[in-house]
Amino acid sequence: MSGNTFGRIFTVSTFGESHGSALGCIIDGCPPGIAIDSNEIQAELDKRKPGQSDVTTPRKEDDQVEILSGIFEGKTTGTPIGLIIRNTNQQSQDYQHLKDVFRPNHADITYQAKYGLRDYRGGGRASARETAMRVAAGAIAKKYLHSQGVHTQCIVTQIGPIAADTMDWDTKNKFNFADPSKVNELDALFEELIKEGDSVGAKLQIVVKGCPAGLGEPVFDKLDADLAKAIMSINAVKAVAIGDLGDTSKRGSVIRDEMTKTGFKTNYSGGILGGISSSDDIVIGFTIKPTSSIRKAADTINTKGEDTEISVTGRHDPCVGIRAVPIAEAMTNLVLMDHFLRNRAQCGDVEQVLPFNNNE
Amino acid sequence: MSGNTFGRIFTVSTFGESHGSALGCIIDGCPPGIAIDSNEIQAELDKRKPGQSDVTTPRKEDDQVEILSGIFEGKTTGTPIGLIIRNTNQQSQDYQHLKDVFRPNHADITYQAKYGLRDYRGGGRASARETAMRVAAGAIAKKYLHSQGVHTQCIVTQIGPIAADTMDWDTKNKFNFADPSKVNELDALFEELIKEGDSVGAKLQIVVKGCPAGLGEPVFDKLDADLAKAIMSINAVKAVAIGDLGDTSKRGSVIRDEMTKTGFKTNYSGGILGGISSSDDIVIGFTIKPTSSIRKAADTINTKGEDTEISVTGRHDPCVGIRAVPIAEAMTNLVLMDHFLRNRAQCGDVEQVLPFNNNE
Amino acid sequence: MSGNTFGRIFTVSTFGESHGSALGCIIDGCPPGIAIDSNEIQAELDKRKPGQSDVTTPRKEDDQVEILSGIFEGKTTGTPIGLIIRNTNQQSQDYQHLKDVFRPNHADITYQAKYGLRDYRGGGRASARETAMRVAAGAIAKKYLHSQGVHTQCIVTQIGPIAADTMDWDTKNKFNFADPSKVNELDALFEELIKEGDSVGAKLQIVVKGCPAGLGEPVFDKLDADLAKAIMSINAVKAVAIGDLGDTSKRGSVIRDEMTKTGFKTNYSGGILGGISSSDDIVIGFTIKPTSSIRKAADTINTKGEDTEISVTGRHDPCVGIRAVPIAEAMTNLVLMDHFLRNRAQCGDVEQVLPFNNNE
Amino acid sequence: MSGNTFGRIFTVSTFGESHGSALGCIIDGCPPGIAIDSNEIQAELDKRKPGQSDVTTPRKEDDQVEILSGIFEGKTTGTPIGLIIRNTNQQSQDYQHLKDVFRPNHADITYQAKYGLRDYRGGGRASARETAMRVAAGAIAKKYLHSQGVHTQCIVTQIGPIAADTMDWDTKNKFNFADPSKVNELDALFEELIKEGDSVGAKLQIVVKGCPAGLGEPVFDKLDADLAKAIMSINAVKAVAIGDLGDTSKRGSVIRDEMTKTGFKTNYSGGILGGISSSDDIVIGFTIKPTSSIRKAADTINTKGEDTEISVTGRHDPCVGIRAVPIAEAMTNLVLMDHFLRNRAQCGDVEQVLPFNNNE
Repeated sequence: MSGNTFGRIFTVSTFGESHGSALGCIIDGCPPGIAIDSNEIQAELDKRKPGQSDVTTPRKEDDQVEILSGIFEGKTTGTPIGLIIRNTNQQSQDYQHLKDVFRPNHADITYQAKYGLRDYRGGGRASARETAMRVAAGAIAKKYLHSQGVHTQCIVTQIGPIAADTMDWDTKNKFNFADPSKVNELDALFEELIKEGDSVGAKLQIVVKGCPAGLGEPVFDKLDADLAKAIMSINAVKAVAIGDLGDTSKRGSVIRDEMTKTGFKTNYSGGILGGISSSDDIVIGFTIKPTSSIRKAADTINTKGEDTEISVTGRHDPCVGIRAVPIAEAMTNLVLMDHFLRNRAQCGDVEQVLPFNNNE
Repeated sequence: MSGNTFGRIFTVSTFGESHGSALGCIIDGCPPGIAIDSNEIQAELDKRKPGQSDVTTPRKEDDQVEILSGIFEGKTTGTPIGLIIRNTNQQSQDYQHLKDVFRPNHADITYQAKYGLRDYRGGGRASARETAMRVAAGAIAKKYLHSQGVHTQCIVTQIGPIAADTMDWDTKNKFNFADPSKVNELDALFEELIKEGDSVGAKLQIVVKGCPAGLGEPVFDKLDADLAKAIMSINAVKAVAIGDLGDTSKRGSVIRDEMTKTGFKTNYSGGILGGISSSDDIVIGFTIKPTSSIRKAADTINTKGEDTEISVTGRHDPCVGIRAVPIAEAMTNLVLMDHFLRNRAQCGDVEQVLPFNNNE
Repeated sequence: MSGNTFGRIFTVSTFGESHGSALGCIIDGCPPGIAIDSNEIQAELDKRKPGQSDVTTPRKEDDQVEILSGIFEGKTTGTPIGLIIRNTNQQSQDYQHLKDVFRPNHADITYQAKYGLRDYRGGGRASARETAMRVAAGAIAKKYLHSQGVHTQCIVTQIGPIAADTMDWDTKNKFNFADPSKVNELDALFEELIKEGDSVGAKLQIVVKGCPAGLGEPVFDKLDADLAKAIMSINAVKAVAIGDLGDTSKRGSVIRDEMTKTGFKTNYSGGILGGISSSDDIVIGFTIKPTSSIRKAADTINTKGEDTEISVTGRHDPCVGIRAVPIAEAMTNLVLMDHFLRNRAQCGDVEQVLPFNNNE
Repeated sequence: MSGNTFGRIFTVSTFGESHGSALGCIIDGCPPGIAIDSNEIQAELDKRKPGQSDVTTPRKEDDQVEILSGIFEGKTTGTPIGLIIRNTNQQSQDYQHLKDVFRPNHADITYQAKYGLRDYRGGGRASARETAMRVAAGAIAKKYLHSQGVHTQCIVTQIGPIAADTMDWDTKNKFNFADPSKVNELDALFEELIKEGDSVGAKLQIVVKGCPAGLGEPVFDKLDADLAKAIMSINAVKAVAIGDLGDTSKRGSVIRDEMTKTGFKTNYSGGILGGISSSDDIVIGFTIKPTSSIRKAADTINTKGEDTEISVTGRHDPCVGIRAVPIAEAMTNLVLMDHFLRNRAQCGDVEQVLPFNNNE
């Protein structure tokens, strides 16, 4: 109810402040018998952790996950899985000067208003560090989905003004960028941002391959609605789109994904029709705002309501979009996993296939 | 669980197919003592109903709401409010030819896959007619929110290629369009669309004024995440954005909404920080895809998986975005109402104010 | 959240006051493809309705159910099922004298305290008439459970001081009483109660045969915990017991339901171990308090807090336990149906069998 | 959904097996600003822990709680509270012989059936050790409820055949027994049970003083229904009763709790009317079955379905009822806390008072 639990059947509840003792989560409703060990969870966490290159924050976070329950002799038991990550590198004194001042475009002032008090150290609960547990939980969902043939991938398609002209899903670069030919251009941009103490936003795309038809619930819990919520709940995300329908000048006759006996002719709708997966690729785009915590000085107020100025000297990313990749993959997998179980609950008696002739 | 209930404390559960006996809903968790009568609910429904002008479907739906419970002597009692609208103008025979064929870009094929059977008459549960009960429920939320000084308005900002150059929130025109100077241009577009049997998409904007600080929950149920889900759950919506952060070339130093003692200097973040309302205007943009049910013939398949062609001759809108206005307002009000009560539950002991000096 | 929805996957949400326009409910999450028609629902409702004999209230309620959605061509479609029953025999003027006075042991005074106002006509939402929709929804659960071999039956085992000495599950008598040899004794008791304008309590037992192993969730949502809640939520129920463990003088060595390869030797635990069904018969006992609305005058207060006296002259049952039978069966079936789907969601990959050798 | 979360607004989610790494929980939805430290939580845990006297299991469990999040500078922050207790004294090798055999009247066989595998060490998740986190969470609810004047106490009223003749709520004895004159008799009984390797059941009573009127929701989430579920969810509890209405021979005219302007004349209904608290004392009785894990040999089967015999030589309580006292208090406080917030969410605008003249 207070917003720290995600999902309805496969649920993830998280706790933890960026500078408290530990982060943790409970994964409940997990099917029994999934083979998983802490290395598989750790591998996902390692993709998210900062300090991996010169274009993300140099802050070191070890993010060593410990499994406390729910996995016995290498398999999930069906009972709740408890995970924690100890906070080992928190430097709370770094944040003492933020005790009485509100960083612009941060949750500082709204947490203070809502709760009447706040853990001001490093953003507390509002820190993106919270997303570590989403990634850990997503690793378990991913393992199960893989066994069902469902694969999710996220990639960065635009950073600041630089847009990818190609979509290379196999490329590896420190920007997680879809167009490797733009890496030099991105390097120059980041050099400038770091020098100026400024930041930019980013656009990303997620594609899910192998999703069976039938996932998603009509009306309020449409699969696209739940994906939109999942992605929008990630820190700094401010826009989400399903498929490729943003250009309103395109006519209905063009974008309606006509069908033949071998399948859909196009996929403008992004693999979801009427809120239910169609078995085509699920395509999600989203936009991340620029990091707000930057060195460049800004006007703000203190807790007494007086004018003051702030320059955030901490350790931050020039573009948080780069590190959003594993988080977005995790959130997508959590939605799919939950809807997979929801669908099985109600429609477990139905053989769910589209009447396409895939062998032709 | 099956997706027909919206909200956590102030909940709306709906039922009804477009061509069944009736639509209906239960509104639960409503505060007692709200003065409301069926005329106030009917007034909102009348904004949504088709057949109001030559640019929406000429289909007639009376949409007469009946209150069955929960309101006694003109006031809500705190017990569940039951509402129904009888379907009086359904012409099921119009849809008999759709029994064995799947309309492209519709839920026909995904419902069939998920459930193994479907009510093929007029889209059944997947019809936009389902949104009538959202609007009815929203009318009650709106009444309460007005008493708290919260006002929500939605307007169309783009139809097909025609974008509003001005934002006139007070204008009245049959397109619900923000820029009255474009009405002639829109008329020409619609004439063309009707002649060709085609359709276009639209963009809309919602603004909420007077929302207090403190609504929204951290992490998963951020106010923007719940708004994104609410809007994305409306038929044909495919993209949602909060605030004005879509241009990733803008720097963090520009968009960070600096503060002075009298308030925020800008509102790029759309009135929500860290998932919690900041007391500034909440701004939401969204995109609606073109109507898929159009006269222009399309390739499709039948229930046997054979190739066939379809031309939907029924009564449809060239741009469904126009009629989305009251639905989007209703969904926004439902989210705010629910979060208002959620916030009161947990933080009812806190005086929630921002330290701005509004008298200066 | 406001307590008018039951279940987690197979959910029933009800609305309606005893003297409003109608009662109704939404059944959501129902598996598609269940063959059911309104006669089957009506048959269950007819078991509950008053006026069936001289030992229940002579009040006439037709309780004609109407299906509004979710059933198409004789089968459930997987979309929400809307049902209503119009209130046709309400005599609101009968209750005008209750507007300003609180009936003892009724919800009158607590509803007034909680909501600040109340529908005083016939108990409003607190009337046992609300249970009609539970019975209607239970009919659908029952149909599905029967197809899975699960059968639920409830019977009265004690009325006032008269206890059944035998358990005859096939007997038919107007008291729904397990021991037909006591009918004359019961007749005499009821004659006395009606003459004196008084009432008595009752004890009942529910037995479920054919329940598969594996239903119920560990810890908080144990099957017995959810059954206890379901039964305790029925008007006038004040005690619930699972199995036959009330006699604390019995030793652990006696009541522990030892096992052999052909099954359990005894069933003291009532078919549930660790909150999960064991495949043995589920046995539930419960106690119903005497009707509070009786002719015999009582001290009470009015809405001004002044002393007054009340004699409820309306049409009431000398023992409401008799009519609790179909309601208790319905609630039991709703719990089992919900847990059947919950179990399938999480454990659908597991073949759930006990290692008994049933063929020996 | 999988039953490891309790509550709707003030929620407690637990994880942990008796012989895993740790137990833990997340308390979400907690009001901000409650002053609490780990000593207050530890004090409640110490009441529950085994090894406190010669009449409970000599097993030593330190149960040292660690607060991981949600409490900052001595106060709850409104964000989720993470707690863990490391398992330090688990002797898993003690349980190796239970790997392939099912203890009678335990969850061993039903967990195996449901999940297809189980953590056989000490009962795993089904161990009463799981209740430690309920007690920890209950300590926080208790602190808030005390500040609202609400006080909960539980006491043992019967052990085996020995019933309390007096209700001394202030007595302190190792049996938590309401009648101190029976302590010698109980000593003799326990000596016999320990000698024979057997066990007995118990009855307990809970009383809540100071509960305001208005808590509880109509219909399904009646306060008594939620209390019944909460208590029934405690390991070994098999019966729950509200108030004093078990004697069905008592007439309605006797038990109806008549009212005068100064209050209720009796409290047969146990402080709850129509599912809503009446401001009178809430009274709950419950029954606990005898410990099933006893030394006395029993027939059972192994995982291959073969007959075998078992004698549980581990460290167990002759009567688990004694240690149920703090758990039952905790569960009661969790229910009240949750309903306090639920009531505030919906009815926060209503001044909730009964029209009694308490000053007279």
